[in-house]
Amino acid sequence: MQMAELSGASGVPVATVKFYLRDGLLPPGEPTSATRAAYDESHVRRLRLIRALADVAGLRLDQIRHVLAVVDDESTSCAEALGTALMPRTADAGPDPEARRRVDRLIRRWRWRVGPDSRNRDSLARALSVLDSLEHPMPDEMLDRYAEAMHQVADAEVSSVPTDNRDRAVLHAVVGTLLVEPVLASIRRLAQEEISRRRLTGRLRKGRRPRRPARG
Amino acid sequence: MQMAELSGASGVPVATVKFYLRDGLLPPGEPTSATRAAYDESHVRRLRLIRALADVAGLRLDQIRHVLAVVDDESTSCAEALGTALMPRTADAGPDPEARRRVDRLIRRWRWRVGPDSRNRDSLARALSVLDSLEHPMPDEMLDRYAEAMHQVADAEVSSVPTDNRDRAVLHAVVGTLLVEPVLASIRRLAQEEISRRRLTGRLRKGRRPRRPARG
Repeated sequence: MQMAELSGASGVPVATVKFYLRDGLLPPGEPTSATRAAYDESHVRRLRLIRALADVAGLRLDQIRHVLAVVDDESTSCAEALGTALMPRTADAGPDPEARRRVDRLIRRWRWRVGPDSRNRDSLARALSVLDSLEHPMPDEMLDRYAEAMHQVADAEVSSVPTDNRDRAVLHAVVGTLLVEPVLASIRRLAQEEISRRRLTGRLRKGRRPRRPARG
Repeated sequence: MQMAELSGASGVPVATVKFYLRDGLLPPGEPTSATRAAYDESHVRRLRLIRALADVAGLRLDQIRHVLAVVDDESTSCAEALGTALMPRTADAGPDPEARRRVDRLIRRWRWRVGPDSRNRDSLARALSVLDSLEHPMPDEMLDRYAEAMHQVADAEVSSVPTDNRDRAVLHAVVGTLLVEPVLASIRRLAQEEISRRRLTGRLRKGRRPRRPARG
């Protein structure tokens, strides 16, 4: 397909497609003349991935470049893609050392043997520091509940990674980690609505006397 | 405190503080002369919240304005803050009707009685459509697992909302929903690392013959 069709099929404007081509995020098409090239389905898929990383995962251009480099690098293993190779979500500054020690202590308590240099330790420490700075500290007991719930989730997720093909596995890991976060976030909010509603109903019911006492 | 101290205490540059004041995100200080004003701890807290919503939750300025309006509106109930009043994370376009019907069907299956107009239904539908467009569809069984895990999480969370004071409850709900997402995301990635590592170790062990047969 030509540039105009590629833009139509992916929903990305022509000027943006050209920018991604110049930037190297999108591989060049097959030249068909001095000024034209042919693109295929792999280009459409790549553009959709770039847009999802930008619009859904909220990544900046340099972060998208990093994620795509991880996906494209044939030496990346699936475990790396799942774990350390992915950008932390938060800023690049090192975490507060005290928050980081707390994370290390929690991970030991959960008996998780995550690598000591995993970037995800730093991400968690940074996220906890932000809550501390807002006077909304997160108690250990709540973090234990989160760890238990996320362990169940991750167990199902890791089982679903395809094992037959390295390219598919790495893409699955990246999409599954970054783009499933909004799915989980939405389900969490729905669950919060459900539980708030149920508690409110429970409280109303408890406060209301039955109109008639039961007979007999 | 004066502007320079406010900037120092919150870590927000003076020019940015002035912008938030002009924009109305930050309430004015107490005037002390024609050109000066005094600020207090409530201004520091507000600035930290604005920065966390921008840097950690990744909200745009118009979304931050909306969230703060919800927090400031005394008629907002805690349930509204937890649920419908929060901005969906993804773009503003309506979701694909088929994805939305799927979400409604799933919620019925989970026996959650979330309001039919909840924006979180649309957010989930949009997040699922993105995965479909990337040829990474999310099976119902995985969504059931997510729902189960998030129900546990939300149950603990709703219990921890303070009930003695409406302002604290609403702020707790907003911070807890938006700014706890990075905590959960980091723990999920750590759990993925842990489970990948454990499976890999298990596979190696299974593939390796014991060096010596057990005696006796």
